[in-house]
Parts: sequence; structure tokens; C-alpha cells
Amino acid sequence: MMSILVQKFGGSSMADVDKIRHVAGIVSAAHLQGNQTVVVVSAMGKTTDGLVNLAKELTKAPQGRDFDMLLATGEMVSASLLALCLQELGFKAVALTGGQAGVQTENLFNRARITAVDTQTVHNYLNDGYIVVVTGFQGINTLNETTTLGRGGSDTSAVAIAGALKADCCDIYTDVTGVFSTDPRVVHEAVKLDEIAYIEMMELARLGSKVLHPRSVEAARRWGIKVRVRSTFQLEDTGTTVMDEQDMNAMDERVIAGVTCDKNQALVAVLGMPDEPGSAAKVFTRLSTKGISVDMIIQSMGKEPHTNDIAFTVNTWDLQNAQGLMDRLLGDLGARSVEIDDKIAKISIVGVGMIDRPGIASGMFEALAEAQINIKMISTSEIKISVLVEKSNADKAVQAIHAKFFVAEQSLVDSKSGY
Amino acid sequence: MMSILVQKFGGSSMADVDKIRHVAGIVSAAHLQGNQTVVVVSAMGKTTDGLVNLAKELTKAPQGRDFDMLLATGEMVSASLLALCLQELGFKAVALTGGQAGVQTENLFNRARITAVDTQTVHNYLNDGYIVVVTGFQGINTLNETTTLGRGGSDTSAVAIAGALKADCCDIYTDVTGVFSTDPRVVHEAVKLDEIAYIEMMELARLGSKVLHPRSVEAARRWGIKVRVRSTFQLEDTGTTVMDEQDMNAMDERVIAGVTCDKNQALVAVLGMPDEPGSAAKVFTRLSTKGISVDMIIQSMGKEPHTNDIAFTVNTWDLQNAQGLMDRLLGDLGARSVEIDDKIAKISIVGVGMIDRPGIASGMFEALAEAQINIKMISTSEIKISVLVEKSNADKAVQAIHAKFFVAEQSLVDSKSGY
Repeated sequence: MMSILVQKFGGSSMADVDKIRHVAGIVSAAHLQGNQTVVVVSAMGKTTDGLVNLAKELTKAPQGRDFDMLLATGEMVSASLLALCLQELGFKAVALTGGQAGVQTENLFNRARITAVDTQTVHNYLNDGYIVVVTGFQGINTLNETTTLGRGGSDTSAVAIAGALKADCCDIYTDVTGVFSTDPRVVHEAVKLDEIAYIEMMELARLGSKVLHPRSVEAARRWGIKVRVRSTFQLEDTGTTVMDEQDMNAMDERVIAGVTCDKNQALVAVLGMPDEPGSAAKVFTRLSTKGISVDMIIQSMGKEPHTNDIAFTVNTWDLQNAQGLMDRLLGDLGARSVEIDDKIAKISIVGVGMIDRPGIASGMFEALAEAQINIKMISTSEIKISVLVEKSNADKAVQAIHAKFFVAEQSLVDSKSGY
Repeated sequence: MMSILVQKFGGSSMADVDKIRHVAGIVSAAHLQGNQTVVVVSAMGKTTDGLVNLAKELTKAPQGRDFDMLLATGEMVSASLLALCLQELGFKAVALTGGQAGVQTENLFNRARITAVDTQTVHNYLNDGYIVVVTGFQGINTLNETTTLGRGGSDTSAVAIAGALKADCCDIYTDVTGVFSTDPRVVHEAVKLDEIAYIEMMELARLGSKVLHPRSVEAARRWGIKVRVRSTFQLEDTGTTVMDEQDMNAMDERVIAGVTCDKNQALVAVLGMPDEPGSAAKVFTRLSTKGISVDMIIQSMGKEPHTNDIAFTVNTWDLQNAQGLMDRLLGDLGARSVEIDDKIAKISIVGVGMIDRPGIASGMFEALAEAQINIKMISTSEIKISVLVEKSNADKAVQAIHAKFFVAEQSLVDSKSGY
């Protein structure tokens, strides 16, 4: 039986007809190598943004059923053009909408989740020798209405289709060569990772890595599909494979997968709350009912006896809202004051290797101390340690931590992977 | 029971967001007047041409299944934008693709014919108080694949949907105020017709009137749906109603509906064919197998005894092909020579009134004689008379014929219709 390969190309890979022709070359090469090939595509370049802007000229907050019908057209254009291009090159190819490809979603618009993938139609075409091009980012609900999957939706489409087809691999082609240990614009020594675990990738994505959407990584883990992130324009690079940590080769050598930096964080502190049950609940219930998500939380004893201070971080775009809510809540809480600080950055290290190695956290703190950087707040989870530092120290902090964990280590990886 | 009104808006009426807002005004007014309203829309402005050009950059002759998926997106964009705009104005509105609206077609791409319209979904939405916006120009085949209907397809969609819904009327909004007795750019006295019979409109459309596609008029006649052609931008004008001749008010007064002129005709003459059975068949079989349609045909005795001449007209873009075919056929036919003339124009008059009035043809010939215009060829049908004249005389011929039939007559129509 032939192996099934799913390839996904994003908007920048499909931006114009020349790039679509280039993609057709990649796809047909995979097909000629004997793979049954399914291609999932995003809309061309900035098409989706253009459609959103058209809708915004007519309605303030476009949403719902008909907005999804509008957005879904972008992928229909790119998918049909790629199919026509493959046909021109002499291949059997067919373009399918998400619905035609059996991508079923919940009855929710603008950010529906995939509930199932009925692969019958795709299988039939593959068995007839077709290259199957599927529109990413969309599906149909039980009423046969088109739904879209929200940001990063095409990655999720590709992974879900690969999972349902039991594909050998899902290749996500993009404009970078893979997942890096940190932002190469900040740290020149940043290294491309050959392998990364699903849970590491999920954390990195949540912490701001734009390479893959968290939802698509979650789907890959659920389906058990290996995802290879690679560059459309540097095909000699084998990219980064996102996979189960059990199957990774590099696990012995490296303890962390990456260092991330989020400069869009702000700190809110509610000071002098009476030390009584329910205070914290009041704070966070109020925030969550307004849709504000909170990241790091620290509760500590206040200056006066029998009082607590609660500090938490929010995204900078939620800061004004969060501050207003806390100001209005002050009397109800019996607290003294609300203070904010938006001159901070959150630096995190992520890695499944740290689970059994208590020395990792201290290594991070050492690196910061050697660089004379003060830590304002610390938060840890199983595979992640985050610290808050002054925003002006953020880049320096990333460089120091990266040097601590990667410079020595990378030589090991290099010698093993042979490049 | 409320009456059902179908309104169709073409690409120029939907060209940008301001025009879509204007269309939403027209639609919502009809809805507020108590009509159950279905709106059929074309793609915005030149969108479809843009999609065709994109495809042509990737494949020389785009066609087939995936080309239809591409083309169908244009109407999905305009339909969803109009629905969003109507919602913003406070109306319940929904956008449906051709397939969702139950427009079923044959399994043929790029110019499929509508086979049936299942109105269940549309009826459900109408009964729930929705304005239903449907993408024109498209349907689905039995395999749930999107098909398009070819040029003029949105008009046909509108008429078919109106027919299946048993609508009271199908309003085709366009950039002219209605159907004119001739081209107003050539004859300033051209009059807008209040009413025109289906078969007259079909002939006018075949003869080059761009207002409605012949296929849509045919569909209107088959479904018995009155079609009102009117202007999106001059709403005070009631337009032209295309209807069964039995129901027309104006039938007594006017004998012809219009004068048309086609300057894209060329004459091909095969001279000196032996007068034996099968010669004409050879000529026209050869032409039709190459997809060349022939309009006027005249066979006459040749100069030499026992020979015939056959002359016929083709579209100028088929001339070179037709001439080549005839040249190669000469020996087989035993004919003397092939001659061509591309400096001709075809002038036609159309009207159901001429069926019982033999004086109409002679009136046309008289008008041309008075204008000193020579007739090269004549062809007649039940409701049409066409003549070929020198192309340089074409406009003068149209003016002379129009003056003969319309100047006196129009005063009668005016006094009756009250404007």
C-alpha cells in the first residue's frame, strides 16, 4: 500500500501565480515519489484580510454564518488555481472544499472546531490516482453550512485530515525553515530544532511562537500525527518534526526546547486585601466574565497584618479593562489600592527534559543573575518556567538564558545529527 | 399569502461597497412593502474576469470542475457581503450558494443547464421572515460539485428560482432603464418598450441585445415568469416587462419590437457548385463539426448551367476558419471558387406583430430604398426579417428603418401608457 502524505501551504507560499507554480512543483515531486498526496492550502497572501476589510466597510463587527461564507472563498480560489496548475502540468488533480473533503465541524461560526473527517471522497480520488487539493480553514456543519476554523485553521485542517487518513506525515510548509530555540532576530546563535515534542510545541505556540497554532499541535497530538514544519523556499532543509517525546532521538542531549519572550504583558497588583476566603475568587471571576485571560498569578502576604496582595499578568490590550474592573472592585474587596506595571516582559523556557531535572530553574536564575537582571515574578509548570523582568532587559535576558542552555549543548546535537 | 418577489442585481450594480449598500436599500424597501424577497446576485464588478485571468496565467484554456469552483467564489463574496449589509440594517438575511438554494444542474461544467430547483430551504427561510440572498451563475450537480451556468447565468438563476417559487415577478436590475427599440447611441429617437414578448426578447438577445441572455428569456417563457428589466440607479423608471404576448397591452399598436444591427458578420460564398444532391450538406456539416455557427443561408443558381452558388454568414471571429474549411473542400465539392466579404452588417427587425401583416417586410425594404441603401441578402422567419447591407451604411439603415416603424407609432404608445 502506498503511503499517504499531507502537505499544507500557507498564504505566503500561495501568494501569487508564480508561487502557486512553485508549490505545484513540490506537490508533483512528492506524488512522483509514489506518495498518495493530499494538499491543504490557505488563501493567497493577504486575501483573507482583504475580505475582512470589505465586510468591515459594510458592518462594524462582521460575524456569523454569512461572514464564514465570505471568508471561505479565499481558500476556494487558491485550491482551484493549484488544481488547475497541476492539471496543466499533466497530473490528475481535483480541488475539494472542506465540506466536500468531509471536514465536519460543530455548529459554530468563525472559529468552529473540527468534529470529524469523513475521508471517503478523498480516498476515492487518491485511489483513482488524483492529487487531492483541499481548502484549509473551513468545514461544514450538520446543516451543510460553511464554517471557518479561526486563526491557524488551515494547519488544523491539515493535521485533522492527515489524522483521519492515517497519513505517515503532515508537512506544514511555511516561510521559515523550522522551529528555532529562540527568535533568531534577537539571538544570532539561535538553533533550528530537528525535533520537538507536541507539548513543548504547544507551550511555545501559546508563548508567542507563530510557527504553528496551538490548536493544530493539540490536534496532531490527539491524532498521533507527526508534523514536519519546513520551508517552501528552502527545500534542502528538512525542517523540524513535531512528535511524541517517546519517539524523539534528541531527548538525551537537550533539556529545554526553547526560550521565548513576550513583551505584551502587563502586571496588575491588588494590594492590601483582607485575608479572608473568597477574595481571590472575586478577582478572577470578574476578570473571566469579561473575557480577560490571566497568565501568571502570585499571592503574597500584605504589608499590614491579616492582608494579602494579589498580582497577576494580563495581555497589554486587556490592561485598561482589567485596571477598570479592579478599581471598581476595590470597595467590595476591602482592598487598599490597585497598581499596574506595563514595562515588563515575560521570559520563558520550555522543555519536557526539565521534568526530572531540578537544576534547570536554578540554571535560568543563575544566567539572569550573571547578566545583572532582576526577577520580578516567577511562575513554573511541569515543562515551563516563566519569569517577569524589566522590558528594557528583555533581549539581554533571552540572550543570557539561551547561551546558558544552548551553546554547549548544541555541539552535542550537531555531532549526532551530522550537520 | 404574501407575494414572492425575486430581484436580480448584476455585477455593475454590486461593483463596490457603496453600490452594495444601495442595493440593500432597494431590497429592504421591497421587503418592507410586504414581499417575501429573494435576491440573486452576480459577482462584484469585474471580479469574474479577474478570476479568469488568474487561471489563464496558470493554464492556457482553463475549464472543467475546478475552474467552476474558482469562478463560483465571485458570487459567494457578493452574496455574503449583501447579507451582512442587510443584517447591519437590522433585517434578517441569509446568503445561500446555488447548491444550498437547491439549484440543481446537469453534470457539465462551465455552462451547465439548470435541471431543477428544490425550493425547500429558500421557502423555510422566507417563512421565517428572512431576506434570502442567492449566488447567481451557479448550482450543484448530482455529485455535489459546484457548476457554473456560463454567460448570462445569473439572469437564468433568477428566472429559474422565480419560476420554482412561483414568484409574481422577477426583477432584473441592470445599468439601463429597460429594453429599447434600437440602440439609443445610434438612434436618438429610440424608445424604451414598456412590454415585450418572450419570443421577441429571445430574438433581440440572439441578435446582439446585451440586456438579457437568450437562455434566461427561454427559461422565463418555460416557467411563465414575468421578467421586469429595470435600472438599479433610476428607480422611478418602471422598466420593460418581458411577458407572454397574450397578456400584453401594447400589441394592438405596435408591429415590431425593435431594430437591431450586427456588425460582426461576414459573408462566405461558395460559387459554381455542381447542382447535385448533398452539396449543401457537405458545406454545413463541415462547418458545424468545427463549431462554427452559420446564420443566414441563401442558395441560388450559378452563372454556368447546372451549378449553384451557396452564400452564408458567419461571425467575423469564425471567418478565417470558415474560409480555410471551404478552400480545402473546393475539390471535393467540385466548386469553382470561394469568395468572402467582411464589410457587411446585418440589420434585423423583430416583432410578433408581423406574423399576420405581410406589409412589414415591404415597409422595411421601402425604408432602405428611400435611404438609397442596397440590400445584399434577405432572410426571414416568423417574427424576424434580416437584411445584409454594406457596413458603411449600417447606422443609416437602422435610422431609416426605425423612423419608418417607430416615429408615428410611438405617439400612440405614449398616449396610452401616459408618459
